[in-house]
Amino acid sequence: MNAPIDVNDLIFISVDDHVVEPPNVFDGRLPKKYVDRAPKVAHTDNGNDVWVFDGHTIPNIGLNAVAGRPKDEYGIEPTAFDEMRAGCYDVHERVKDMSAGGVLACLCFPSFPSFSGRLFANTDDKDLALAITQAYNDWHIDEWCGTHPGRFIPMALPVLWDPELCAAEIRRVAQKGCHALTFTENPAELGLPSFHQPHWDPVWKALVDTSTVLNVHLGSSGKLAVTAPDAPMDVMITLQPMNICMAAADLVWSRVFKEFPALKVALSEGGTGWIPYFLDRLDRTYDMHHLWTGQDFGDQLPSDVFREHILTCFIADPIGLALRNDIGIDNICWEQDYPHSDSSWPRAPEELVAMAARYDVPRADLDKITHENAMRWYQFDPFAHRPREDCTVGALRASVEGHDTAIQSMEHGRHAARAAISLGQLAEQATA
Amino acid sequence: MNAPIDVNDLIFISVDDHVVEPPNVFDGRLPKKYVDRAPKVAHTDNGNDVWVFDGHTIPNIGLNAVAGRPKDEYGIEPTAFDEMRAGCYDVHERVKDMSAGGVLACLCFPSFPSFSGRLFANTDDKDLALAITQAYNDWHIDEWCGTHPGRFIPMALPVLWDPELCAAEIRRVAQKGCHALTFTENPAELGLPSFHQPHWDPVWKALVDTSTVLNVHLGSSGKLAVTAPDAPMDVMITLQPMNICMAAADLVWSRVFKEFPALKVALSEGGTGWIPYFLDRLDRTYDMHHLWTGQDFGDQLPSDVFREHILTCFIADPIGLALRNDIGIDNICWEQDYPHSDSSWPRAPEELVAMAARYDVPRADLDKITHENAMRWYQFDPFAHRPREDCTVGALRASVEGHDTAIQSMEHGRHAARAAISLGQLAEQATA
Repeated sequence: MNAPIDVNDLIFISVDDHVVEPPNVFDGRLPKKYVDRAPKVAHTDNGNDVWVFDGHTIPNIGLNAVAGRPKDEYGIEPTAFDEMRAGCYDVHERVKDMSAGGVLACLCFPSFPSFSGRLFANTDDKDLALAITQAYNDWHIDEWCGTHPGRFIPMALPVLWDPELCAAEIRRVAQKGCHALTFTENPAELGLPSFHQPHWDPVWKALVDTSTVLNVHLGSSGKLAVTAPDAPMDVMITLQPMNICMAAADLVWSRVFKEFPALKVALSEGGTGWIPYFLDRLDRTYDMHHLWTGQDFGDQLPSDVFREHILTCFIADPIGLALRNDIGIDNICWEQDYPHSDSSWPRAPEELVAMAARYDVPRADLDKITHENAMRWYQFDPFAHRPREDCTVGALRASVEGHDTAIQSMEHGRHAARAAISLGQLAEQATA
Repeated sequence: MNAPIDVNDLIFISVDDHVVEPPNVFDGRLPKKYVDRAPKVAHTDNGNDVWVFDGHTIPNIGLNAVAGRPKDEYGIEPTAFDEMRAGCYDVHERVKDMSAGGVLACLCFPSFPSFSGRLFANTDDKDLALAITQAYNDWHIDEWCGTHPGRFIPMALPVLWDPELCAAEIRRVAQKGCHALTFTENPAELGLPSFHQPHWDPVWKALVDTSTVLNVHLGSSGKLAVTAPDAPMDVMITLQPMNICMAAADLVWSRVFKEFPALKVALSEGGTGWIPYFLDRLDRTYDMHHLWTGQDFGDQLPSDVFREHILTCFIADPIGLALRNDIGIDNICWEQDYPHSDSSWPRAPEELVAMAARYDVPRADLDKITHENAMRWYQFDPFAHRPREDCTVGALRASVEGHDTAIQSMEHGRHAARAAISLGQLAEQATA
């Protein structure tokens, strides 16, 4: 038995949270000719706030902004800014919520542009799309992450429609200290060339040259794990993380890691408990089939390739902690998922420590999982901005004593009379 | 450390093997008016044997009949009977191969009709389809399984297009001692009502009434786990088993187990190592979301529901052995997968014992996995036909001493000059 761990002494960096973009993202960041065509927030007649861009209306899905709300008010209808915690969209409030939740720093995925920025990519005017993508990245890096140095790992949107422009954007943001790119788990699902085509080589090269991590978040292919249009919502929620095994297999067997041996990929919100099975399966597939499929990893096994290149990430995954050494203790990062419905904010550190106690995880392993791996994979050093002793759960919470984290019911109570929405409708929204 | 286990003392029952149907399946089993319209084997100009039925031509996919062949001759092109081991289609040779492989008994899935018999279901003439389905089931139960009593667990094809007729067929074959039905992992993918519709209730009722297990084999939705048409074959091979988690989630969250609490389902060839993660995920989804999704399992958790109803099955799955108690030691069965390419025939028992030694699996647990669970779930008693002491690996192998199991190259060597076939083409064949 290892010594009991005091949650107050730990340091938490989350590699998967979400920003709900505030209305001012593009203010002052676009050339004059594009100001009128920038994405804008509109308030609908039935009380929702939506983003409007290029003929598309993108609601804020309720499940994506439920931090601090009672569970019986979770739902997937559109919602409004005044039905969310301010920490969803206001960075000062976000930092207070992070501190109250014991979390030092986090990596924030985008909301309305989609995880891979495909909303912008779908615009016919590609000059406009590039200007908007760059404006978004500048807002994210300079304002959202820059306002509170050391509290955010910056991450850029890709230029999805042009690998050369994407490479240039990766190099541009790297100059500003951004070493993470959000991307799609499967470009083929978006009608783009698959991971198996040299098409993407300029992107891989720029990522490697700038030591930038590619982040493929669950759902970033625009395809939900839906079994049938009339299946209960619980089916999709259960399956969504595991679905990312498709991206992992696609990449391990592709030419990408063979051609770009320094490339690093994070399976964001993909969970970890299934990885040891998956690694066994990779190796058995190689053993049984490589003589006729022609795969050749030299003196490596595909599981070695996986561990060299892929970071696994979890929110709450007890068996993954038990299997940490079968996964690779240097390949696991923790996620908070604020303000989505899978998050345990503000008690996530306590949840993790309780799970770790079940499997007697030693402090050294827990430190890797809670922050050391994230710092190394993302080249992120929060201690350059804040003394280490001020970065612990205990110190952060003390710094925001009195900050209100109590569960609060939605102001308008519109969620109480929730209309049933089918998985079919949700899938349609997701791919719209 | 448990005492070392002698493989010769163990008893192996496989809950997943495959029969390559011989040309005479329908001989003497159809009303005269349908004899000419029965599925028939034809020999093509380029040397392949194919089944022809109702305007469709169904090749024997090479990967499905590679037992005893060198691995560099595995492939997915069509093949011919004289390129297969006779054990693929000749029951007397099959039983010798089973004995030489140390396997007492097995459950055989169909080949050319597809796992769920959808080839027959797609025929417009439903009377013909029913006659053919019943003839197939009679052949399978009476001839394939009946010739060597105690060596096969019989399993029937469903009447996919009519739940009432399907229920009647389940009851008919149960009278003949058949307590397994092969089915699809997702009827919605086949254009039929999903698991969430009362449509299937007559089937569930007949299964429960006759204590018949529903077997959903990977790939039985007709949908392959393909990421992109140009992805290497290895991607699909790796992902295929895990894909069955979709069926598991679909069923656990559906009304099926709530309405039919005695129903049992086997996830055939689905593997086991991912199950503990999946169970954690089910329970967390329930905890986080049931208040708004409306799921209600009373005083149970969804993981309890899974273990009450679902049998998990594996061919070779080291981490699954390590996690046997997190899966449920009474919910795991072993599979041989003869004559498919994932099988380790004829050394599968040695492979399993070596894996079990890695995780110090006690003999009592191994006995459950190798045969006791299969006997209980499928109500199958081979010892009624053969003294127990003649059922062990050692005794079975001694009974066929001299039977040739050496790896043999294909007679025609056509596989040496293998044309590249894409996943796109394979998916097309699979869903044709």
